[in-house]
Amino acid sequence: MPLTPEQQAEIDALRASPRPTLRATSEGMEAHLHTAHPVLDHGFVRVIDYMGDDAAICQAARVSYGRGTKSVSNDAGLIRYLMRHWHSTPFEMCEIKLHVKLPVFVARQWIRHRTASVNEYSARYSILDREFYIPAREALAAQSTTNNQGRGAALEGEEAERVLRILREDAMRCYDHYEAMIAREGQQGLARELARMNLPANIYTQWYWKTDLHNLLHFLRLRADPHAQYEIRVYAEAIGRIVADWVPHAWRAFEDYRMGGATLSATALTCLRRMLRGEAVTQESSGMSAGEWREFRQLIEG
Amino acid sequence: MPLTPEQQAEIDALRASPRPTLRATSEGMEAHLHTAHPVLDHGFVRVIDYMGDDAAICQAARVSYGRGTKSVSNDAGLIRYLMRHWHSTPFEMCEIKLHVKLPVFVARQWIRHRTASVNEYSARYSILDREFYIPAREALAAQSTTNNQGRGAALEGEEAERVLRILREDAMRCYDHYEAMIAREGQQGLARELARMNLPANIYTQWYWKTDLHNLLHFLRLRADPHAQYEIRVYAEAIGRIVADWVPHAWRAFEDYRMGGATLSATALTCLRRMLRGEAVTQESSGMSAGEWREFRQLIEG
Amino acid sequence: MPLTPEQQAEIDALRASPRPTLRATSEGMEAHLHTAHPVLDHGFVRVIDYMGDDAAICQAARVSYGRGTKSVSNDAGLIRYLMRHWHSTPFEMCEIKLHVKLPVFVARQWIRHRTASVNEYSARYSILDREFYIPAREALAAQSTTNNQGRGAALEGEEAERVLRILREDAMRCYDHYEAMIAREGQQGLARELARMNLPANIYTQWYWKTDLHNLLHFLRLRADPHAQYEIRVYAEAIGRIVADWVPHAWRAFEDYRMGGATLSATALTCLRRMLRGEAVTQESSGMSAGEWREFRQLIEG
Amino acid sequence: MPLTPEQQAEIDALRASPRPTLRATSEGMEAHLHTAHPVLDHGFVRVIDYMGDDAAICQAARVSYGRGTKSVSNDAGLIRYLMRHWHSTPFEMCEIKLHVKLPVFVARQWIRHRTASVNEYSARYSILDREFYIPAREALAAQSTTNNQGRGAALEGEEAERVLRILREDAMRCYDHYEAMIAREGQQGLARELARMNLPANIYTQWYWKTDLHNLLHFLRLRADPHAQYEIRVYAEAIGRIVADWVPHAWRAFEDYRMGGATLSATALTCLRRMLRGEAVTQESSGMSAGEWREFRQLIEG
Repeated sequence: MPLTPEQQAEIDALRASPRPTLRATSEGMEAHLHTAHPVLDHGFVRVIDYMGDDAAICQAARVSYGRGTKSVSNDAGLIRYLMRHWHSTPFEMCEIKLHVKLPVFVARQWIRHRTASVNEYSARYSILDREFYIPAREALAAQSTTNNQGRGAALEGEEAERVLRILREDAMRCYDHYEAMIAREGQQGLARELARMNLPANIYTQWYWKTDLHNLLHFLRLRADPHAQYEIRVYAEAIGRIVADWVPHAWRAFEDYRMGGATLSATALTCLRRMLRGEAVTQESSGMSAGEWREFRQLIEG
Repeated sequence: MPLTPEQQAEIDALRASPRPTLRATSEGMEAHLHTAHPVLDHGFVRVIDYMGDDAAICQAARVSYGRGTKSVSNDAGLIRYLMRHWHSTPFEMCEIKLHVKLPVFVARQWIRHRTASVNEYSARYSILDREFYIPAREALAAQSTTNNQGRGAALEGEEAERVLRILREDAMRCYDHYEAMIAREGQQGLARELARMNLPANIYTQWYWKTDLHNLLHFLRLRADPHAQYEIRVYAEAIGRIVADWVPHAWRAFEDYRMGGATLSATALTCLRRMLRGEAVTQESSGMSAGEWREFRQLIEG
Repeated sequence: MPLTPEQQAEIDALRASPRPTLRATSEGMEAHLHTAHPVLDHGFVRVIDYMGDDAAICQAARVSYGRGTKSVSNDAGLIRYLMRHWHSTPFEMCEIKLHVKLPVFVARQWIRHRTASVNEYSARYSILDREFYIPAREALAAQSTTNNQGRGAALEGEEAERVLRILREDAMRCYDHYEAMIAREGQQGLARELARMNLPANIYTQWYWKTDLHNLLHFLRLRADPHAQYEIRVYAEAIGRIVADWVPHAWRAFEDYRMGGATLSATALTCLRRMLRGEAVTQESSGMSAGEWREFRQLIEG
Repeated sequence: MPLTPEQQAEIDALRASPRPTLRATSEGMEAHLHTAHPVLDHGFVRVIDYMGDDAAICQAARVSYGRGTKSVSNDAGLIRYLMRHWHSTPFEMCEIKLHVKLPVFVARQWIRHRTASVNEYSARYSILDREFYIPAREALAAQSTTNNQGRGAALEGEEAERVLRILREDAMRCYDHYEAMIAREGQQGLARELARMNLPANIYTQWYWKTDLHNLLHFLRLRADPHAQYEIRVYAEAIGRIVADWVPHAWRAFEDYRMGGATLSATALTCLRRMLRGEAVTQESSGMSAGEWREFRQLIEG
């Protein structure tokens, strides 16, 4: 359960009091504001604030005085053009601020995206809660036998049980010891900034994370990708659903040109042209390595 | 006159239609939204959008679920603490988007601040307007005789007249030729991206510029400083007045700790302690160079 | 002529005195160090310093203790893999510092790439030289009639003559006035920071520009592209030739996957699969706009 | 013991083979190259590569063609001037690349400095080593009773023993289970990217970290500060000793103006001027809060 009743009450209070503004507003986004969308067993993503909408992207691209064209179809076409030709600054003109609760090992991947502002809950100053990510059975994947960095099928039976037991028991024991070290009657208590070192990487942390739409889409392209680790991908997918409601034209262009698109090398383009002219190209005659050829075949066969 | 009637009408339309939002709003900032504040002879600064307010700074610093404490005095104290101890990320949680019209030589200084998003009016695609910055008489400063990078008193009499005449005539002639090169009956016309090279650096350009409050304050510290060039300083001062209405607590802390504050070296601190103990310190006994000593004396004498 | 004899002597002195280092060195790059490669009529690009080589990319990707594998073919394969899968941080581990002399209107495009460090020659402090870019006859392009942002064929005959005459005369006259304003006997002289506003955008400036290989390749992808303005493209091409000698494996991967490659949208991929299965796809049945279909046909026809 | 014999042999090989270069070299830095400086119980900092020296800072500030002035005292004076007046870009012209081995909870603080390039050892791909930070007895600090974010005196006697026992045993048990989950005969083995979540935050990781001198000094100002957590401070101090040998003039200016200096607010400056004129200022008449007054008294009393 990601929220306490007190936290839910604070959120409800925020959602109960709309105020007038002269800024651009996105109705799709207003519906999400403040609400915690659950992710994993104790995590969430919730929108704290946003700036801009689809029209704001176009307004900036045109450096216009007002809202620019009133024609939605013109805006959609311009956004597709900007996305297709890798114009990034108009998409930087929209901004989002999220409150995210997430396991530490996910946070460690996430923070590698540097073009963002972050305020994380401080374990030097405060005491962390007893909340750990324990995977659902179907997410308890084996090491891939073909890919050093990937996952195979889910573990089963006794092995799965054993793994879950270890994760639960080690988390609880480490947290018991964390509590015991920081304070107990008749003792001084270890500094919080030291005691936290005993906590495993599946403990939950939380942060405010703010970035612009261009960098957010780059984050989603990498983290909503099937090759991303499942535990960060579910966050990326939850954010993607929010973005689709916030800036629907930008989202559709992103899906077409980035998420669903693919980049071909010069070598691959040459093969493609030969194939379209009717030639039978093999790996040997392609100029590609075995790995590249496999990826290429998958791509053109769909 | 910075705005045409059509532009003013677009702005009026934007200001006439408030919409409800669940986001944090700043009443002081709403009063500024979209309005063009004149700067120099044809320039302006106007707020297109903003995110956050004083409370949002505290909310991020606390990673809180709601708006946090309702006590304004607590928020003010926390903001002062954050500013005093150089915490930057909570101030990054506020964002501003400006539309600025400014001479090219000012834009060239401004763009050196890299942590911002910019969309500039394209002179490859569009034709620039015939608008040039011509300094007011009192801003027509002589080269400083003591500071290679500064200004002395204003020029006077015939010399001032001559300079103004040169600036006006060269601007007009270069613009006439710009127009003549890009299109005239019976000719193809030079590409716009080439023709613009004939335009002097006092021509006006415009851009959308978006940055966060932390980086904005850093910009203001450098560009609202008395040592900054007058023509960018007036932009910084206009933005400063807007920020004072947007996030009044952050602004007051910034004025106290940054704009009105000063950094002393270890050497200067040692001198100060000696002086407070009643010792008469001279440049010779200070360990400072002549230049540093002069700056130090000015600082402590106020 | 981009260099004075004194400047050439300084460069010769630097090239005459090799020193021992324990750092990674690139022989291909050492041959370029300090030498000014001419670009346009008065500009140049010269390498001041660099960090890393092809092996350094691999070493960082492997977080290794020594130089890693001694096998060059392994390094080449790893670099191709990293480039193909959009790994950016290993390429950030190489760094380059350039001294560039370039027209102001080129500098204004260049500076939009924000992830770099820049020290520009100061026209507040110093007096600019009388050097202006005047296009060669074959670069004197007309405005494109099909593309608002592009160039058509070169101007010819009297029109070309007239344009060149304007550019030369306005440059000389503006510079004469610049000189006249800043100093003349019996007058104070206008502040340099003001006088420079009279100089047109084809005057040359110079700067030190430092960036990492990842961001440099991104710059080259955009600025060595046929759609980039010719005057910045020639700088990008000069830098590209240097990079090819500095990190040859990374350069070849970049040429294959980025410069010679192309990104296809989801819609385009679907069309491609239909065509490979023998279907005759038309724009109407493609789901693409006319513009996208035209770009797609060009791509697959080569 | 931070290094295996094989790793030491790789480092020795690198240090045995100097090569000629035409780049700027720093003799002080060459002496450090590749050598692992031990930090904490298993960690280290070692320089992999660097770019620039003190003269390179001046060369960029002057945008010069050669090495500029040969006078070391001029360079030192210019560097002091640049540091005193907050010029940042010339310091960005030097770059350093470090290989660091550090506990995960230290890495989590470190990574908050975003203007750097990082390649971290991948626990998705590889198996982490059984190495954990266990504090020395004298670093086993109690929670501060006056500062929520700080440390008090070291724990003693039985309490210290108990804490060390917990840290050691939990680390070993969690690592045993990590190993047991990823592979054992007759089982598939949990994916490495999942198994790592069982490892506590005192496990060691390692990365390549590259940044420029300006951002490095900012990092050192915050992390070598007495208020920084001890475990990151010792890394900052080790790096500081290296920087002092690399760019000795920049380091001395940094020590004087940043590390040993202090920033006074406008309010504090006013008090100071009153005190220097002989007035007895109290907290009540100072306009400062109790906390600010205490910090101010400490500063001026030394």
